[in-house]
Amino acid sequence: METPWADRFAQRTQRMRASVIRELLKLAEQPDVISFAGGMPAPEVFPVDAVAAAAERVLREHGAQALQYGPTEGYRPLRELIVARAARYGLHITPDHVLITSGSQQALDLLGRIFINPGDHILVEAPTYLGALQSWSAYGAEYVTMPIDEEGMITQALEPALRTGPKFIYVLPNFQNPTGATLREDRRWQLITLADRYGVPIVEDDPYGQLRFEGEHLPAVVVESARLRGAATYRGNVIYLSTFSKILAPGLRLAWVVAPPEVIAKLVQAKQGADLHTATFTQMVATEVAQGDFLDRHVQVIREVYRERRNTMLAAMAEHFPVGVRWTRPEGGLFLWVTLPSRLDAGAVLEQAIAHKVAFVPGAAFFPGAGPANTLRLNFSYAAPEQIREGIARLGHVLRLQLDQPRIMPRAA
Amino acid sequence: METPWADRFAQRTQRMRASVIRELLKLAEQPDVISFAGGMPAPEVFPVDAVAAAAERVLREHGAQALQYGPTEGYRPLRELIVARAARYGLHITPDHVLITSGSQQALDLLGRIFINPGDHILVEAPTYLGALQSWSAYGAEYVTMPIDEEGMITQALEPALRTGPKFIYVLPNFQNPTGATLREDRRWQLITLADRYGVPIVEDDPYGQLRFEGEHLPAVVVESARLRGAATYRGNVIYLSTFSKILAPGLRLAWVVAPPEVIAKLVQAKQGADLHTATFTQMVATEVAQGDFLDRHVQVIREVYRERRNTMLAAMAEHFPVGVRWTRPEGGLFLWVTLPSRLDAGAVLEQAIAHKVAFVPGAAFFPGAGPANTLRLNFSYAAPEQIREGIARLGHVLRLQLDQPRIMPRAA
Repeated sequence: METPWADRFAQRTQRMRASVIRELLKLAEQPDVISFAGGMPAPEVFPVDAVAAAAERVLREHGAQALQYGPTEGYRPLRELIVARAARYGLHITPDHVLITSGSQQALDLLGRIFINPGDHILVEAPTYLGALQSWSAYGAEYVTMPIDEEGMITQALEPALRTGPKFIYVLPNFQNPTGATLREDRRWQLITLADRYGVPIVEDDPYGQLRFEGEHLPAVVVESARLRGAATYRGNVIYLSTFSKILAPGLRLAWVVAPPEVIAKLVQAKQGADLHTATFTQMVATEVAQGDFLDRHVQVIREVYRERRNTMLAAMAEHFPVGVRWTRPEGGLFLWVTLPSRLDAGAVLEQAIAHKVAFVPGAAFFPGAGPANTLRLNFSYAAPEQIREGIARLGHVLRLQLDQPRIMPRAA
Repeated sequence: METPWADRFAQRTQRMRASVIRELLKLAEQPDVISFAGGMPAPEVFPVDAVAAAAERVLREHGAQALQYGPTEGYRPLRELIVARAARYGLHITPDHVLITSGSQQALDLLGRIFINPGDHILVEAPTYLGALQSWSAYGAEYVTMPIDEEGMITQALEPALRTGPKFIYVLPNFQNPTGATLREDRRWQLITLADRYGVPIVEDDPYGQLRFEGEHLPAVVVESARLRGAATYRGNVIYLSTFSKILAPGLRLAWVVAPPEVIAKLVQAKQGADLHTATFTQMVATEVAQGDFLDRHVQVIREVYRERRNTMLAAMAEHFPVGVRWTRPEGGLFLWVTLPSRLDAGAVLEQAIAHKVAFVPGAAFFPGAGPANTLRLNFSYAAPEQIREGIARLGHVLRLQLDQPRIMPRAA
């Protein structure tokens, strides 16, 4: 299958090797390559039968509505479902706080449309989600980067950055793409407090929040922000994004934005010009699938599968990766982040890895400017456990070959 | 149901009455109002059973693929289906000439992204499709308008307009929205020839081309352009848009662009940032529905239904509208265009019409600048024939009331 990933990653890597990496990542799509490069959910857990039953019911009971034009804001029962789910976390909103989008990518793009003028500064984690950079760069955004560690954005560095007057702060607090890092609770508070003080909106991108395999759930930034303000109905400055892509199916292209109604109204106007509205049929199918406690039960299944795959990858890395390679240990999500000995170049490693039929994305792609050449992102959600073991063994072999190359200085460790 | 139409039309009408017309058109969405205002297909002809059968087959046979991420260009078998259908009209293209979009609105928006810089001039018919104006104005487009009559754009006026250096020409050659006009064959040739001479691309928007109830099919502008150039594979400067919204169902949000591969490549890059890709599930369902000759048979059904509704509307107007009111007689599509005696204001008529439970869109909304106040658009696809008769009777009554108002000068005719 063709995917957009190869092009996307290549566009963001250093100019000199963009075409090389693009071609390498296209090779990663060949069926005999074990790919940790994409960000795709495990197809084995797609609830095909539930979607089929929902599609059948929607068409039988509301066929004419499902196939007709619908409102730009989204199918109202789906927006009400988002409202009800938010209330479980103590976030009190109305359907006027909710916009249904054609995937979170569209939400990012619409935010770019309504907020970004050429030259505007956006405060982002470094590294951060590539799709956001790609969307916003098209509107002429420039980036102020915030360092992150395994506990997310290092908020001590936030205040000087806020003084530069960014248009908004973009943060992925849970199991961040690409690093897997989760923002520590006290840092969430610091982020909210400082953003409030400087009057800068926060765009909270939370595609993976439900996919925690271990540790305790941390309240979303928008939830903490609501608690801080204590208003009955949310009126804060956090714009919250999430998606059905990771808890149901990306092929439906359904995501949502929660924001103050005046922001939603602007996003609706932008979406009207962008694609009029998201498919009525898929929105109604998702609403039907989500009746009762299906989503909660299904998320449990996904968590089990992803936990096993993450554990498999962590164990295989411990077994096969040479000394001097470090990696994150995410408590949820789809990705982990590997730091190689500094003398290795992830682009060169990728070239050899593809020859050995295994693939990943060099980490430099995820930085707005130049990024460290010795990092890489691994996805653990897509490949089955036996493939993960085999793929990591191959990658370990490649890393040893790279470290043993005579043009490389002998290892110190 | 909420719809985007009220907001959309209001944004384009004269600033002084925008809020009034917006509120009036929201009232048009009440169930007891007979609305000729929207542009919705007849829900009675949606092929609900065929879509249900296709959805069932797609999920049973390719469930994991249908729910997974897909390529930005679109589902390849759907692109191949477009290629095969184009070949029937003598247009020889490859899948690299085809992009699947989330409705034609997205195609218009992506064209805006790749072509329009602030201040660029776009050559449009006046009146023209509102959604295009809305999309492109967001990119800073300005408009050079071409007059049209019942035989479409008056191409004699084209050459001076082309000398102003427009970025592209936007034309709806078949059963134009809003007028119902169809571009005469010799004018199609003149359009192509002049566009070629001045090196200006043509954006051909053809949502209704299949919906001809009478008269002979005219080759699309892109088909004529291909014939003129005589190349085996299309390499002309026409960008052709069409959609499944009017021949299958708008609630699937599926449309397509046919263009030279280098234009498609740019659109793909823009779409990647906009929404990554169109829903895999709906693309696969449409591909499955379209197997065999289903679409051709279904289009015949739609034509019959719309012909009856148009005929019903034309007959009712002849019976109920006062002397001095003129209207177009489209050979296909969804809309016709009414010109009132010049002393009437369609906004005032709408206000009284809503009080009498019938609605339409004032024609001024469809002009890039100021438009004539005495025109209006009627949709004949959505309301059932008995509603059309009743709605036109009500509208005729309102027009008589307006003409009889003492503050209006006595009729000359």
